[in-house]
Amino acid sequence: MEFADRVVQAVRRKGNPVIVGIDPRPEELPPGFLERFPGTRAGVADALREFGCEVLEVVAPLVPLVKFQSAFYEAYGPEGVAALHATIEHARKRDVLVIFDGKRNDIGSTAEAYARAYLGKTPVGGAFEPSWDVDAMTINPYLGSDGIDPFVKIAAREHKGVFVLVRTSNASAREFQDLVCDGLPIYRHVARRLQTWGKGKQGEEGYNLVGAVVGATYPNELAQLREELPGVLFLVPGYGAQGGTAKDIAAGFAPDGQGALVNNSRGITFAYNKVAHRGDAGVDWRRAIEEAVHEMVDDLAANTPAGRLRPASA
Amino acid sequence: MEFADRVVQAVRRKGNPVIVGIDPRPEELPPGFLERFPGTRAGVADALREFGCEVLEVVAPLVPLVKFQSAFYEAYGPEGVAALHATIEHARKRDVLVIFDGKRNDIGSTAEAYARAYLGKTPVGGAFEPSWDVDAMTINPYLGSDGIDPFVKIAAREHKGVFVLVRTSNASAREFQDLVCDGLPIYRHVARRLQTWGKGKQGEEGYNLVGAVVGATYPNELAQLREELPGVLFLVPGYGAQGGTAKDIAAGFAPDGQGALVNNSRGITFAYNKVAHRGDAGVDWRRAIEEAVHEMVDDLAANTPAGRLRPASA
Repeated sequence: MEFADRVVQAVRRKGNPVIVGIDPRPEELPPGFLERFPGTRAGVADALREFGCEVLEVVAPLVPLVKFQSAFYEAYGPEGVAALHATIEHARKRDVLVIFDGKRNDIGSTAEAYARAYLGKTPVGGAFEPSWDVDAMTINPYLGSDGIDPFVKIAAREHKGVFVLVRTSNASAREFQDLVCDGLPIYRHVARRLQTWGKGKQGEEGYNLVGAVVGATYPNELAQLREELPGVLFLVPGYGAQGGTAKDIAAGFAPDGQGALVNNSRGITFAYNKVAHRGDAGVDWRRAIEEAVHEMVDDLAANTPAGRLRPASA
Repeated sequence: MEFADRVVQAVRRKGNPVIVGIDPRPEELPPGFLERFPGTRAGVADALREFGCEVLEVVAPLVPLVKFQSAFYEAYGPEGVAALHATIEHARKRDVLVIFDGKRNDIGSTAEAYARAYLGKTPVGGAFEPSWDVDAMTINPYLGSDGIDPFVKIAAREHKGVFVLVRTSNASAREFQDLVCDGLPIYRHVARRLQTWGKGKQGEEGYNLVGAVVGATYPNELAQLREELPGVLFLVPGYGAQGGTAKDIAAGFAPDGQGALVNNSRGITFAYNKVAHRGDAGVDWRRAIEEAVHEMVDDLAANTPAGRLRPASA
């Protein structure tokens, strides 16, 4: 099945459009968690792996997607990367789609190597084997089509997806993305190219394998891009910790509640911080995660078209 | 010593501005090389490690810098990343500076995690340890200052460097980088910001820790950027295989032959391809690498200001 169809159906089945972002900062792990592991790079990596797997146990039954932020694993060298790999393998055995958030970018055969790495297969001993095998990855458009086409080609062949950075959620997104050329800001030039990149790559549910990253923190831009890019899945960062509200995101959805996938990272995984002070070893951080997911699902249901995703019987 | 000073002095000492790019594509390894390793992901990763270390033995005495393309290692999963780590450790014991070419980009604490990963130190058991410890890394500017500042901050603290993509060497670089806003193409807006990012980060030799990636395949843009960005080190890809010639690059140098670092990847590491057909197991690929380095050094010396780097006695 095509990636975009898998997404739409998972969103429908779970009844919400939430992506749980797994960005494990060791210093934010629940009280006492890190201390159970050796104080070495491998020990911290092991802690990140175990934490990620535990988060998956809680969230995989509840949400359609998870997103792994590669930076926090790369920070612990090859051991950290191995921990990410093991956590992704764990996720793949659960009922949840996996996005690799590495914002990779390069040209030609190098871009192809990244695409093969995360979405496709690499040559091993005369055969081809998947190395990472995630469902989708984030990519950066600064290099133009040469830097996008190899990802799209391999995503199409492997029934996977990409999310191209269009409008990021940070304050200085404006610096280059808002520069106006021929009456259009750069991010809208990227959006226009995105339609070309995705041409003919529509799944049965009407969505494309080439998605867009559009921040929750720019509601007007989000609304405009939704209008301009029907059939494009939006990965929406910036909800919660970064200040984006459900109301800000509402216009990013299609009327049926599909089309926008809303990420929340530390607001969910480190939700225990809200309910208890650090150092309180008795805190039930798993339950805090579960409650934070339900809270976010309810918030989106109440304030965005995502409310229409809920089964009528609910 | 500051990164930029280390670069300038290494270029002076070696008498050339060459970066050997190590982008190991398994299918291009010398005849018979890959076959000595098990046909597994770990086996291929081991082959990449051994090849990279062998290349280093040949080139480290000859050139000031090497650059590792992360994509080709990530393609082999955690095993590939471990091979990259081991090869970088090997490089750090040789007399050569190391650039991690991963074109990373993100915002806030995520950008900081990448910067700590590759340039700085990460918290481990109450202390701080380096995970990768390279001399410099490439980064992508699409996210604006939020995505650059954390890298610059940590590079400054650790006496390391960054190279920001300004004008890439590929054909479709024009798509977004050449869009004109307020009379200036986007890549020149990036160049202007780059001066802000590097403010006050000059070493004793007059160069900044914030460098720029500027492709050899756009000689006019290269010349213009050189004029606009004195004191900024250029990492110049696109020489050789991508079509850039020494004459194209000449204007990227300062008159004394400093300021431009010219990368060549497969033109050096897979130079045996030029001298013998694949399948000829007798090919001396190490000698082909050595000859390709000398040829490139001579070409740059004859056709660019890099000729002035050579000691008077040579």
